[in-house]
Amino acid sequence: MPATLPPDSVGLVIPQTLHFDEPLELDSGKTLPHYDLVVETYGELNAARSNAVLICHALSGDHHAAGYHSMKDRKPGWWDSAIGPGKPIDTTRFFVICLNNLGGCKGSTGPTSINPETGRIFGADFPMVTVNDWVRSQERLMRRLGIVQWAAVIGGSLGGMQVMQWAISFPHALRHALVIAAAPKLSAQNIAFNEVARQSIFADPDFHDGHYLEHDTLPRKGLMLARMLGHITYLSDDAMRAKFGRELRAGKINFGFDVEFQVESYLRYQGASFVDRFDANTYLLMTKALDYFDPAAEFDHELSRAFAATEAEFLVASFTTDWRFSPARSHEIVKALLKAGKRVTYAEIESEHGHDAFLVPIPDYMNVFRAYMGRVSTEADA
Amino acid sequence: MPATLPPDSVGLVIPQTLHFDEPLELDSGKTLPHYDLVVETYGELNAARSNAVLICHALSGDHHAAGYHSMKDRKPGWWDSAIGPGKPIDTTRFFVICLNNLGGCKGSTGPTSINPETGRIFGADFPMVTVNDWVRSQERLMRRLGIVQWAAVIGGSLGGMQVMQWAISFPHALRHALVIAAAPKLSAQNIAFNEVARQSIFADPDFHDGHYLEHDTLPRKGLMLARMLGHITYLSDDAMRAKFGRELRAGKINFGFDVEFQVESYLRYQGASFVDRFDANTYLLMTKALDYFDPAAEFDHELSRAFAATEAEFLVASFTTDWRFSPARSHEIVKALLKAGKRVTYAEIESEHGHDAFLVPIPDYMNVFRAYMGRVSTEADA
Repeated sequence: MPATLPPDSVGLVIPQTLHFDEPLELDSGKTLPHYDLVVETYGELNAARSNAVLICHALSGDHHAAGYHSMKDRKPGWWDSAIGPGKPIDTTRFFVICLNNLGGCKGSTGPTSINPETGRIFGADFPMVTVNDWVRSQERLMRRLGIVQWAAVIGGSLGGMQVMQWAISFPHALRHALVIAAAPKLSAQNIAFNEVARQSIFADPDFHDGHYLEHDTLPRKGLMLARMLGHITYLSDDAMRAKFGRELRAGKINFGFDVEFQVESYLRYQGASFVDRFDANTYLLMTKALDYFDPAAEFDHELSRAFAATEAEFLVASFTTDWRFSPARSHEIVKALLKAGKRVTYAEIESEHGHDAFLVPIPDYMNVFRAYMGRVSTEADA
Repeated sequence: MPATLPPDSVGLVIPQTLHFDEPLELDSGKTLPHYDLVVETYGELNAARSNAVLICHALSGDHHAAGYHSMKDRKPGWWDSAIGPGKPIDTTRFFVICLNNLGGCKGSTGPTSINPETGRIFGADFPMVTVNDWVRSQERLMRRLGIVQWAAVIGGSLGGMQVMQWAISFPHALRHALVIAAAPKLSAQNIAFNEVARQSIFADPDFHDGHYLEHDTLPRKGLMLARMLGHITYLSDDAMRAKFGRELRAGKINFGFDVEFQVESYLRYQGASFVDRFDANTYLLMTKALDYFDPAAEFDHELSRAFAATEAEFLVASFTTDWRFSPARSHEIVKALLKAGKRVTYAEIESEHGHDAFLVPIPDYMNVFRAYMGRVSTEADA
């Protein structure tokens, strides 16, 4: 709720909707006959169209990465700490674009959109989308904007997976790939957490097989549970200890099932507020896209072979207390890149913020990020 | 389903129900006017009544720790690997007793019992029970059996918390305290997982405010979700990788929400089968007993002061990949005991089995356990 906008903010921004009429065939075999993508841009595209940076969002992210939609906004976009004049992704140098991915719920075509085949809300009939599908839709967006090569493609978590897929699928289309707090594929434990989150949503009687909007309801409890569980995996044990410890909300034990510990209060709040801003079917699709991502699978499960044709220079960054995608998972990426003979910079940032650290302006992290982006050229390769 | 029983089994066992008429005042301020405890015993009590060992069970455990109830049983008791002739808790030397705790669902008075005040099933009206309440009820059981001092009190996880409480509350009543895979109190993250499990149960429309039995139903989906989530925290990331990896059940991705990965199949099976053998209200009570346990709280949060009056000799054991109660949590216990000048042996066992390791007959673990129990005297202190 800034009375005046901070000087290093990109300021007030207006999302734009781009319509695509060319059918998109998805990995699942299904086809989207046409679709919309909602985007935001920050900074100016230069005459050579060579200073564009693509931001890929994570599970619950969207196109609103920086700035404010109105002077009344309580908070700026989700990566405002990293995007703006003088920030690591410096909007005085770069033209930055961020989109809401297909299957999203913030304006791009997704489960809350109207299915052109039936005239009714897609709901559960929206097809599964993969990281590869997203990157292919983003490549069309790139062509629409007349951009031939990104200066950089950047993302954290599920966003980092899209960055890797970009480098693999369209080697010449990006000069730099910034893969932050990501993994080359989910572990069984990661999949297990996603599965419990999905089952929480399915178990909600208001889910109605994914057609809850037609029933004029929402699977509030199920999505709330999924988000509560997600939050545990985003924060580190240390961060939770520092933030809540075993603090009792009322100062004493009440021997009941109402909120007793502060951490319970936090989780319930996070869960309940998420329901008002996110769609359960989108949540389901995003978790499946995470589960499916495994670019090495087509290369005999040899990740270095998946990276063999990439041309981008990489920054890989991880955070010490991230247990969702731990530093060890980033090491897998770095080792595979090195084995493939690629240029890669690796940064392991000390942080107590767990997986969420990639959204937090930790000084060491911002410094590494800024230094790396400082040597990303705004001019196309010769 | 043993055709003949293994030679190192305690054999066929028959649970016994003991009735207690003396009212038990609980930490919550409520009173149980009378109650039953179901127990099993293995081995023979010696004439001096000095060779008795108490086994305390964990969250989903019960009195059936060893042996078989019938020749048709598919599996023996939950700690059969550790209890029997020649096993670490050697039934040729010790008289072993294990009980179902108050609030349980396997025959001891709990939420599925009849409330004597109303003549109806307790359900959600069963009072909260704490680790301290359990230990006090176990001390009455001890007196009923004419035992003045346990040779040892032994437990893993929540069972280990009861062992600590025994040593603190009744210093002279046990010669040895074996605390396995436990923690001196839950972390915020531990509480957070419990809270999501509880909310899963509450969210089930068949929960009926805890009076589901009177509605002739069960909160199956909610309890299933709680158990699925629990299972993720019992297994290590490594164990899940070794057990399931990213194996696809049908060999290929099917782009749907049915089971795709083996780990999903495992979790759903574990969750679904738990519902048939466990009560949701008991599950809720057990998670709260875990959350509340914090013996240092009464001693200015100084654990060594909580241990100051203890007389038992301790074995503390932890497992390298246990992330629910990691070795660091056992170190807290050991450090506090050392600071208090107590005798303690510590073993950190290499294992990939996560928290579940305490139930697994890992050779190093069994050797340490056997060696320690080998020097536990069956004779009373002079």
